[in-house]
Amino acid sequence: MKADSIHSRRTFLQQASLGISASLLAAPAFASHSLFTPPQTGKPLGVALVGLGYYSRDLLAPALQETKNCRLAGIVTGTPAKAEEWKKKYNIPDKNVYNYQNFDRIADNPDIDIVYVVLPNSMHAGYVTRAAKAGKHVICEKPMALSVRECEGMIEACKKAGKELSIGYRMHFEPTTQEIMRIGQQKEMGQVQMVSAGAGYRETRTGHWKVKKAYGGGAMMDMGVYALQAARYVTGEEPVAVTAQTFTNRPDMFREVDETTTFQLVFPGGALANLHTSFGMSMNYLRATAEKGWFRLDPFSAYGGIKGESSKGPLQFPKINQQAAQMDEVAYCIANKKPMRVTGEEGLKDMRVVEAIYQSVKNGSRRIELKA
Amino acid sequence: MKADSIHSRRTFLQQASLGISASLLAAPAFASHSLFTPPQTGKPLGVALVGLGYYSRDLLAPALQETKNCRLAGIVTGTPAKAEEWKKKYNIPDKNVYNYQNFDRIADNPDIDIVYVVLPNSMHAGYVTRAAKAGKHVICEKPMALSVRECEGMIEACKKAGKELSIGYRMHFEPTTQEIMRIGQQKEMGQVQMVSAGAGYRETRTGHWKVKKAYGGGAMMDMGVYALQAARYVTGEEPVAVTAQTFTNRPDMFREVDETTTFQLVFPGGALANLHTSFGMSMNYLRATAEKGWFRLDPFSAYGGIKGESSKGPLQFPKINQQAAQMDEVAYCIANKKPMRVTGEEGLKDMRVVEAIYQSVKNGSRRIELKA
Repeated sequence: MKADSIHSRRTFLQQASLGISASLLAAPAFASHSLFTPPQTGKPLGVALVGLGYYSRDLLAPALQETKNCRLAGIVTGTPAKAEEWKKKYNIPDKNVYNYQNFDRIADNPDIDIVYVVLPNSMHAGYVTRAAKAGKHVICEKPMALSVRECEGMIEACKKAGKELSIGYRMHFEPTTQEIMRIGQQKEMGQVQMVSAGAGYRETRTGHWKVKKAYGGGAMMDMGVYALQAARYVTGEEPVAVTAQTFTNRPDMFREVDETTTFQLVFPGGALANLHTSFGMSMNYLRATAEKGWFRLDPFSAYGGIKGESSKGPLQFPKINQQAAQMDEVAYCIANKKPMRVTGEEGLKDMRVVEAIYQSVKNGSRRIELKA
Repeated sequence: MKADSIHSRRTFLQQASLGISASLLAAPAFASHSLFTPPQTGKPLGVALVGLGYYSRDLLAPALQETKNCRLAGIVTGTPAKAEEWKKKYNIPDKNVYNYQNFDRIADNPDIDIVYVVLPNSMHAGYVTRAAKAGKHVICEKPMALSVRECEGMIEACKKAGKELSIGYRMHFEPTTQEIMRIGQQKEMGQVQMVSAGAGYRETRTGHWKVKKAYGGGAMMDMGVYALQAARYVTGEEPVAVTAQTFTNRPDMFREVDETTTFQLVFPGGALANLHTSFGMSMNYLRATAEKGWFRLDPFSAYGGIKGESSKGPLQFPKINQQAAQMDEVAYCIANKKPMRVTGEEGLKDMRVVEAIYQSVKNGSRRIELKA
């Protein structure tokens, strides 16, 4: 380990012992390690989950049993049977249960501080805006929305309401991921030259919203943003040019959205990324080539944990509950008026690239230049 | 390990104990393990190296000190000082030393059985043809030539002369590589769905033939064929469509040839490959995603050895001298009239894809369909 790296760890540990996250003091684009839960804020903030699908049920709700700075206080669902089940399981009072008709009344509910939007992508913009108008802070699942324009509207709505907006990019809160952000951005192995990443799973639900264009479906929107994020957080830069290609082995199922997309990103510092995402196969890895070595995470965005290695040896960090770390830090920042690690602007930056990717695919893989 | 795999290993070991390579009995496209030197053929065949650059000096000549079925018998060089040095070092008689003017007289030299062409790419076709006309078997370094047409001419010349032609794809003789060929082609983890590979080194010699178009330079020709080979030998298939993109960070140096190329290959069985090659960075890895798991080699084509791992655990095989294994098997096949593992057709198949890659790049990354 290099001297400056040891130094930054020491500084971090000193701050940690004071109960202050180094990242919250400095708030660089991609902050240093937060290997601990942010300090407890006093009364935990109340979170309402909007949309009770798989991610809410199996990941967010269990994580909210582990969080210290926030708690599961309410739910929003269109399915009465789900409401009953959740009320019992998590001891949620009737007054904190909403449906999509009466959702806006959440404005009058002091139990709810944060609304976490976990709906199909096409509904993100609408519900984030409504939540902000209801005077709530908002976390929105990735991808942020269907277009840059929608993202801008969401950011504006939250700003106007004086409320925080964070996007559900949980990897930013994961220690091994934070370490490769540091290696890449601080050029510990010199300039990053190539990022390769694959993110996918096999989608077999032919009627699911994820294979419907109107809902913002498609592999690029759903899994591709992980690979895109990887290239952005490893380099710490925004791409200036994009090419992209799309492929399918199941044309009947993937009539409206992409099954598999490969895309190339040119970064201003000289790095190139060659990435792929798919609804046809299970894959999850990231490998970066730098001037003086390489590093990889395989898997790189799995819920169950990240496995890291570099040309210098294993990258070992404690396994954490990613969603709990994410929500705890968001709640801490809200309670203490600290800058968010993952802002709405971060989601917008991805959408800007996703739009260019679609544009390239539509134009036979033509190179699309992005303004710096 | 699956039952059929155990069976094939047993069969192999039985054959090995009889001194017979399983691959030479069955001769499938990508044969099973040859973890041993092919049986000695009696009198070793004499090899003449044509071109005494780095690869001949540091890899092939030392390997020829380890081979049993062939030996370094002659050299062809345009540099008298090199001739003197090699003659002394390897005890080569004057009569077995040629230059580019008197090369064709090699026809009259019974010490030379095999001519190994290690010249700049643009000279491969000419010297392979001349060697065949001189009545010698030929090994030609990769890439085979500058075009499909040249490859066809080389194959035809050797056929007409009744001589063998093999291309210097040493990885086909390397045990860990053979294992992933087996896993991929025998679908041990189900159908291969994605192949990702990166092959490159940083070329800084501004005047070198590798950065000149007339000599067949460029990253794709030099290192890209390793990544292309990887996708072909992991799937055991020929691509049916190609897209490709090219990038450079050093436009002054890379005016004539590509510094970095990314390319995508569609295979008929459903696999996709997303590959990259570069003269700008040092990288060497291969990762395949299959239905039931993944496997990777990192590095995948390094002289010093291959490191393999799969979702089932490490892939461990003895480290071998790749060039010695390659030349020994080629000599064995020649002496015993067995089919070559790596034929001229194998080199031609790569060139067919390389031509499509250049065509795609020239046409703004347009998808090029290849005939099955």
